[in-house]
Amino acid sequence: MALSRSDSRSGTGPVTGSARSVEEHLRRVEELLRPLAIRDVAEVAMGAALGRRLARDVHAPLDLPVFRNSGMDGYAVRAASVSVTPVTLPLTGVVAAGQTGQAPLPPGSAMKVMTGAPIPPGADCVVPVEDTHGDEHTVTIERGRKTGDFVHEPGVDVRSGELLVSAGTTLAPRHIAALAAVGLPTLPMFRRVRAAVLTTGDELMPAGVPLRPGQIYNSNGIALAAALTANGVEVVSVEHSRDDPAEFGDRLAAATAHADVVFTSGGVSKGDFEVVKDVLSTRGGEFGSVAVQPGGPQGLSVSDGVPVLSFPGNPVSTMVSFEVFARPILRELAGLPPVPTHDVALLDPVRSPAGRRQFLRGRLDGDGVRLASGPGSHLVAAMAHADVLIDIAPEITELAAGSIVKVREL
Amino acid sequence: MALSRSDSRSGTGPVTGSARSVEEHLRRVEELLRPLAIRDVAEVAMGAALGRRLARDVHAPLDLPVFRNSGMDGYAVRAASVSVTPVTLPLTGVVAAGQTGQAPLPPGSAMKVMTGAPIPPGADCVVPVEDTHGDEHTVTIERGRKTGDFVHEPGVDVRSGELLVSAGTTLAPRHIAALAAVGLPTLPMFRRVRAAVLTTGDELMPAGVPLRPGQIYNSNGIALAAALTANGVEVVSVEHSRDDPAEFGDRLAAATAHADVVFTSGGVSKGDFEVVKDVLSTRGGEFGSVAVQPGGPQGLSVSDGVPVLSFPGNPVSTMVSFEVFARPILRELAGLPPVPTHDVALLDPVRSPAGRRQFLRGRLDGDGVRLASGPGSHLVAAMAHADVLIDIAPEITELAAGSIVKVREL
Repeated sequence: MALSRSDSRSGTGPVTGSARSVEEHLRRVEELLRPLAIRDVAEVAMGAALGRRLARDVHAPLDLPVFRNSGMDGYAVRAASVSVTPVTLPLTGVVAAGQTGQAPLPPGSAMKVMTGAPIPPGADCVVPVEDTHGDEHTVTIERGRKTGDFVHEPGVDVRSGELLVSAGTTLAPRHIAALAAVGLPTLPMFRRVRAAVLTTGDELMPAGVPLRPGQIYNSNGIALAAALTANGVEVVSVEHSRDDPAEFGDRLAAATAHADVVFTSGGVSKGDFEVVKDVLSTRGGEFGSVAVQPGGPQGLSVSDGVPVLSFPGNPVSTMVSFEVFARPILRELAGLPPVPTHDVALLDPVRSPAGRRQFLRGRLDGDGVRLASGPGSHLVAAMAHADVLIDIAPEITELAAGSIVKVREL
Repeated sequence: MALSRSDSRSGTGPVTGSARSVEEHLRRVEELLRPLAIRDVAEVAMGAALGRRLARDVHAPLDLPVFRNSGMDGYAVRAASVSVTPVTLPLTGVVAAGQTGQAPLPPGSAMKVMTGAPIPPGADCVVPVEDTHGDEHTVTIERGRKTGDFVHEPGVDVRSGELLVSAGTTLAPRHIAALAAVGLPTLPMFRRVRAAVLTTGDELMPAGVPLRPGQIYNSNGIALAAALTANGVEVVSVEHSRDDPAEFGDRLAAATAHADVVFTSGGVSKGDFEVVKDVLSTRGGEFGSVAVQPGGPQGLSVSDGVPVLSFPGNPVSTMVSFEVFARPILRELAGLPPVPTHDVALLDPVRSPAGRRQFLRGRLDGDGVRLASGPGSHLVAAMAHADVLIDIAPEITELAAGSIVKVREL
């Protein structure tokens, strides 16, 4: 199952026949990460539950509505008293919402009730205030109502004991409304997957430091952290290691100590100083080439029991690797909907290397998609203008404008 | 411009002709909230910028790539030296990424270069390592390359001074990658709209407290807060007031002191104790009926210079009011994409009251939509099973199964 090591470049050259397919590598990544779905369960305050996954079925602990109440501002009566209209009835009380008294309705009378107020025992319908006129002592009802009109019976929405929200549901505001309505102060929630980001490369410098010749700014750490956050993952650390095996080993140990999964960037290619590959290969990591562009060199390891996904270091390769290999399973684990894909018409002609699945950066334009960038994995600024990846199958080398292609939203 | 006060019920009765249309009320809400777009600008750390809006155009402060570098692990040569292959060249150095030295390439020789490393002066292309073999002293090149191959020239991605990301952009991971790549430690960002939530009603109790007769749990506060958060709004407070004008006035003053906009629930209908309407009407607030179901009674005010949107108190009315009147403009202010709408086939027949635009709770099922709930605004548990609102125009009173309807995603 080891990845081929025969071709691990990130460039545009030919691919050898032995590279692993995108589908196979994706399957391996998902196999490694899917067990993270079984995670700690904690009681979480309702106010912190939005967007997180419910760990257990929640059954209603009470009926909704809780008690028989009025659906309108109006007058609680017996339907029999208003079968002939107009009719004037004596007013024998006022029931406000929140009023806890349970005075029964004297036969042949009316009680004023506010929306949500308890229906007095003996009443069986509510006449809306618009269909009435009156004074402090009597009410004249212009239009009759039948038994049950504007009366909300207990349990018609949900009965005590019935399933309210299922385990695994990612909570949206509407779920929170229902769970709050039955008075739950906390909910049993899965915690989010915790990820650590570890970038590598002697040439990478933090923002705000002047660059010396040969140096560039580290964008992979902050961009991977943003991508993880945007896909329901809790980022517990973002660190950088120079191309030094001892430093990398130390930082990796710190990452695996508190994360469920570690993402590394850089150090996986065929150069002389490939710190990620060098360290993790000795721990059984698989490093080699996937038939994809950008993002050919990939690594997959388990270190101290924690899965480690190793992406190549070019900024576009890092981000496309995340989109292709990590994002689908991370969204599944977070209970988020799958990444939307669409079939659209190419507005530009496209060339693609034989034998590699290519993900070009595209921008939707009306009903079609334009190229937002050349294919180079160094074009990180150009990627900011893209909103989709254009997915070109390995066997395709040329597509004319007008061809239908699959795109996935960034 | 005052709302009609002739019909302010939340129920299913007839509507009088004088209710304000949904479109008109929506226009008024948007008129009141759109000025919130011009808000404070603050420098925000890159790590906190995801999902927030850039306040100013950001131009690249340097070229990307920063310097002429190698796109591959391989050998930097002059193309002229490899015009006939195979050819064996003396190896005169190794350039790692991050190496700051600038030793020039002696003519007729090769230097080993790692991906991202500076191209030595004098070299004009890179031969990928796969097309070579050699030892410590020489390299044999099997395939020639032309000038520029695998050389990333400075500025081909973006040039210093060029627009990198436009003002108003809501930052996704790809924007953050580009902004980090040019070394910016902070970004000028609009702060989020700050909202306060203020629920009302003597009958509403907090979670965890046993209910007495006539009481229910307050779901509107927590559900509105979740809905606001999910739509890019910062919720600064969630408070509750009893139906007491003095208490409501105090809590409203606290809310307007620190929020850009206040959302209230309850107290807007035709009952005897309508605290929100009673207090805010005296400050010029507009209270009355909108031709919509659920959510007919609506209020719109400005208190201490802060817009106040007042929704009816039934949980479903509150949430549908938010979806219909507040969510579109709040998403616009946050720079989020519009709420998705679709045209789908009704799988159940539908009845709708004449003269009111009705928003039924629906659940997508294959290519169609089923009713997820009856029309009652008390059916908050049932709403948890919905994923769309079915939008029924005011003039429609009946639709057969198979009719095409517009739905908006919850």
